[in-house]
Amino acid sequence: MISETYKAMLQQKSVIRNLAEAAGERAKVIGAANVFDYSLGNPSVPAPQKFTDVMIRLLQEKNPMELHGYSPTLGIPSVKAKIAESLNRRFDMNYGPEHIFPTSAAAAALAHAFRAVTQPGDEILTFAPFFPEYNPYVNLTGAKLKVVPADTTSFQINFEAFEEMLTEKVTAILVNTPNNPSGAVYSAETLTKLADILRKKSSQYGHDIFLISDEPYREIVFDGKKQPYVSKFYANTIACYSFSKALSLPGERIGYLAVNPACPDAATIVNMCGQISRGIGHNCPTSLLQLAVAEVLDETSDFSVYEKNRNLIYDCLVDIGFDVVKPEGTFYIFPKALEEDAVAFSQKALAYDLVLVPADSFGCPGYFRMAYCIDTEKVERSLPVLRKFAHEVYGK
Amino acid sequence: MISETYKAMLQQKSVIRNLAEAAGERAKVIGAANVFDYSLGNPSVPAPQKFTDVMIRLLQEKNPMELHGYSPTLGIPSVKAKIAESLNRRFDMNYGPEHIFPTSAAAAALAHAFRAVTQPGDEILTFAPFFPEYNPYVNLTGAKLKVVPADTTSFQINFEAFEEMLTEKVTAILVNTPNNPSGAVYSAETLTKLADILRKKSSQYGHDIFLISDEPYREIVFDGKKQPYVSKFYANTIACYSFSKALSLPGERIGYLAVNPACPDAATIVNMCGQISRGIGHNCPTSLLQLAVAEVLDETSDFSVYEKNRNLIYDCLVDIGFDVVKPEGTFYIFPKALEEDAVAFSQKALAYDLVLVPADSFGCPGYFRMAYCIDTEKVERSLPVLRKFAHEVYGK
Repeated sequence: MISETYKAMLQQKSVIRNLAEAAGERAKVIGAANVFDYSLGNPSVPAPQKFTDVMIRLLQEKNPMELHGYSPTLGIPSVKAKIAESLNRRFDMNYGPEHIFPTSAAAAALAHAFRAVTQPGDEILTFAPFFPEYNPYVNLTGAKLKVVPADTTSFQINFEAFEEMLTEKVTAILVNTPNNPSGAVYSAETLTKLADILRKKSSQYGHDIFLISDEPYREIVFDGKKQPYVSKFYANTIACYSFSKALSLPGERIGYLAVNPACPDAATIVNMCGQISRGIGHNCPTSLLQLAVAEVLDETSDFSVYEKNRNLIYDCLVDIGFDVVKPEGTFYIFPKALEEDAVAFSQKALAYDLVLVPADSFGCPGYFRMAYCIDTEKVERSLPVLRKFAHEVYGK
Repeated sequence: MISETYKAMLQQKSVIRNLAEAAGERAKVIGAANVFDYSLGNPSVPAPQKFTDVMIRLLQEKNPMELHGYSPTLGIPSVKAKIAESLNRRFDMNYGPEHIFPTSAAAAALAHAFRAVTQPGDEILTFAPFFPEYNPYVNLTGAKLKVVPADTTSFQINFEAFEEMLTEKVTAILVNTPNNPSGAVYSAETLTKLADILRKKSSQYGHDIFLISDEPYREIVFDGKKQPYVSKFYANTIACYSFSKALSLPGERIGYLAVNPACPDAATIVNMCGQISRGIGHNCPTSLLQLAVAEVLDETSDFSVYEKNRNLIYDCLVDIGFDVVKPEGTFYIFPKALEEDAVAFSQKALAYDLVLVPADSFGCPGYFRMAYCIDTEKVERSLPVLRKFAHEVYGK
């Protein structure tokens, strides 16, 4: 009999998907170049040429049986060693290959992490605004996702609300910095305070509380700054990384999970991931991509277009009179809508061919997200339209 | 807190893995060429050159943003259409793209299929001998795998035992033909009888019973024969396919799930798979591999070496006096051990540097599996050793 659980999920419509579909329909009428689609977080800069070169070289030179053979359950050892070495060098850590588990991008890393450190019924806390896919990602494991309300002044952490919600039932905290959708970069101060609270509460409750750090945007930070490395602050941290954004490879599903060596159960958790894979049909990311990314660990795509777009849009929004925190990274900006109902606001924007995503599903009603991973030329053409929309509809 | 469920699984040692490790240790001493390792089902013939050519062409010619961009949740439409067209042409079916869901090989296809057609507590029946990974694959979903005892005379289906076990709790049947580990190819007669029983019992119990067909070996059939296409026999069939064996790409994790268009819920089930993916972190197989396999759907690796090995080993085993059914496909053969305890038998064989897998975990104690996806030259060198072992230890 077909599953009622998954069948029922088909009725839930994603706001982002609906908007993307509306934008697609409109594009058929006026041309894609004339729809200012800020809805999707799909990288707009190409993968580094070195990645393509490595892929072609592997295909041309390596014995196909070896190249395309089964990866060991816990990942290809040489790949794990290279990932550990790169993390150690860049973030002053001391990972060994035994702490690294290659995954089919961050979604699969999270699927393993949630199962590794929760039992059904346990709670995982995350912080608004948050990536709405966390809901099914967590809730379909049997654990429960609860969302701490946003600190809308800075999009760091609302610690007062957090401490209230951090009950004994919570066994993991999920953070995402640089953050989708706010573009905020958690500061060393924020991470220190978070870690202090987790240590205190772990001790008080007599059980571990894990920190699961979803970091696909780790390298996309502006103004020459860097994301403080989350695992440095707290021993029981599981970093979930994806090359999707750093190398502009979202379709290639490649990333890894890295358990802080300071975590007493680090190697056990990686071994457990091999067991978790069996139940979820994971069986490692593709061998070819494991080998290829291991050759370009210190490369990234050219993110300068994201920073340029951030500056253009932020300045324009401020000039119009939007309430907006300046993003320090990612390719998202997260302004307050010009009316209380961000869904209505986005609907009205659509009439101007502006595709803006209302943030109700991100746990932050009244705000909206713009994904500015699009050509700068298009951003430039969109800004007068944004001004016109704000003026005509809201008198700004 | 770390999960006790997955931690406990670390204590269970896989017989195959232990044997592979012992073989690896021995190889360090006497050289890999001198260990007759029949333990692993890793293809021993290369991927078709055309596959490699297509991959390189895609990397050289296609816009990297398009090539490496996100796949739609339900797979790349052009890829789905090509898979449907190839299946229709080869197996006289009428799939549309809406019936095809690309997956990270058969393991992921199965992970989706099990969740799509069971609720926690439902039973899935499979037939011994069976691939032991089915246990965690099914049981970690909350459904329960039950194993119908083998028909050891032919390794078709033991229908008497099957009908007894086919209670109202059963919502899905899992078949694997050509079969790992027996090499049996279910006949049209077997599949007709199976389908008749399922229709009768579905009607009697007033609920659907799905047939989940795990078919990674579909193309590896000997003597010019073909595997009758399972979905032709029964409307509510979900085919789970992998290119791992057909194209010798086990590490690249690429395959698909195809729901029989004759199933009334076919398109709904594919849509549900998109929801199931969210909970298990699947998010489609890699875009590049989806596009590449779509260009080589009618290709396979050269399987003649498997057939040659099958003939050599089968003739030798019969000559020695083993009780063995001639495999009609795959790259496995499944003889009865020369003593009741196949684990003891395999241990004794190891002293002759013969790595044979006892079949207790395959649901068929007293038998053993040989995976003959190795060089023919090595098979030829191993046969006198097999004779010597049978003679010296068992007086054959």
